[in-house]
Amino acid sequence: MPKGKPLFVPNDGLTTRQRRHRPLLMVHTGNGKGKSTAAFGLALRAWNQGWDIGVFQFVKSAKWRIGEQTVLERLAALHAETGEGGPVEWHKMGSGWSWSRKSGTEEDHAAAAAEGWAEIKRRLAAERHQLYVLDEFTYPMRWGWVDVDDVVETLTNRPGRQHVVVTGRHADPRLIEAADLVTEMQHVKHPMDVGQKGQRGIEW
Amino acid sequence: MPKGKPLFVPNDGLTTRQRRHRPLLMVHTGNGKGKSTAAFGLALRAWNQGWDIGVFQFVKSAKWRIGEQTVLERLAALHAETGEGGPVEWHKMGSGWSWSRKSGTEEDHAAAAAEGWAEIKRRLAAERHQLYVLDEFTYPMRWGWVDVDDVVETLTNRPGRQHVVVTGRHADPRLIEAADLVTEMQHVKHPMDVGQKGQRGIEW
Repeated sequence: MPKGKPLFVPNDGLTTRQRRHRPLLMVHTGNGKGKSTAAFGLALRAWNQGWDIGVFQFVKSAKWRIGEQTVLERLAALHAETGEGGPVEWHKMGSGWSWSRKSGTEEDHAAAAAEGWAEIKRRLAAERHQLYVLDEFTYPMRWGWVDVDDVVETLTNRPGRQHVVVTGRHADPRLIEAADLVTEMQHVKHPMDVGQKGQRGIEW
Repeated sequence: MPKGKPLFVPNDGLTTRQRRHRPLLMVHTGNGKGKSTAAFGLALRAWNQGWDIGVFQFVKSAKWRIGEQTVLERLAALHAETGEGGPVEWHKMGSGWSWSRKSGTEEDHAAAAAEGWAEIKRRLAAERHQLYVLDEFTYPMRWGWVDVDDVVETLTNRPGRQHVVVTGRHADPRLIEAADLVTEMQHVKHPMDVGQKGQRGIEW
């Protein structure tokens, strides 16, 4: 529960109102659960505000977020039908990006990740969405599939009022430095520690 | 992304399938963001599985989760209309529990919290829901408004297949000990540190 009172008021020439509405770069990192789940929880709130949401999944498997995808696509359909909430686009790298004509069968993940990032850059420049969920985007950054300095510079200098949340382990220190809000989800105890496997409804 | 492989297989007499379907007691604690947000993200997945969801908010203010509440109530209505997903009940202590005839205007939070917990105990005994979100329930535990040993014993011995997620800072060590999955959301950096206040769509 937010305490509602900032620790101090900065001397940055902004009014409280301007500062309040500053778009945020958020990072959910750490070795624990809830990094992506909290990002999709954020998308719920954004939908309810009528924001335009773009989800970009940088994972190969399409299985693990199917619950969230189904619900957010259902909410997007509801928006299209009734005008409630906001629009949602859900793109995933696993089976080839939906905007790409390339087949997803070839196994060049590095090229696919770079292509995903290039599209996100274009959308940021065009102020296409109000919330970007870059799910598991720390991995292509870590693996050198995208240029970290380019990512950090692009996100830092993005125009307009676009919120971005990046999830995944091992967030680069430059990304953390650039971010407004960083949470580390720390693993304390997990059923897999005692031999339990993931289960439907909980893990996906 | 779950690695899908447990560290070891326990000698507990259960098959992998039985172990996989063991209902979970989950705790999201720590001083960072995302504890409740991840719990409501979990509720998205549960809804998509058609589970019966009960949300119990142990906070006074009704403001902070209004986005999640609106969306989950919309999804509950969708379930009632079309049969998609599962039912959702959302109860909050702030304005008096919805099942209670007592007015919420009196300021006895301790009694209200105890009453909320008594209702949850009845529902657990009756196997009323498949997922219980006990939002900010660590606070009434910490403040002595509910008996921690009673909570831990009741949750540990709950019948059937009922998942429970408890959120809030300062989770009691006995609750952590009893839980199957514990994540600590650690604060790394927050806009309030640099004088920015909470904002619509992000904080609520």
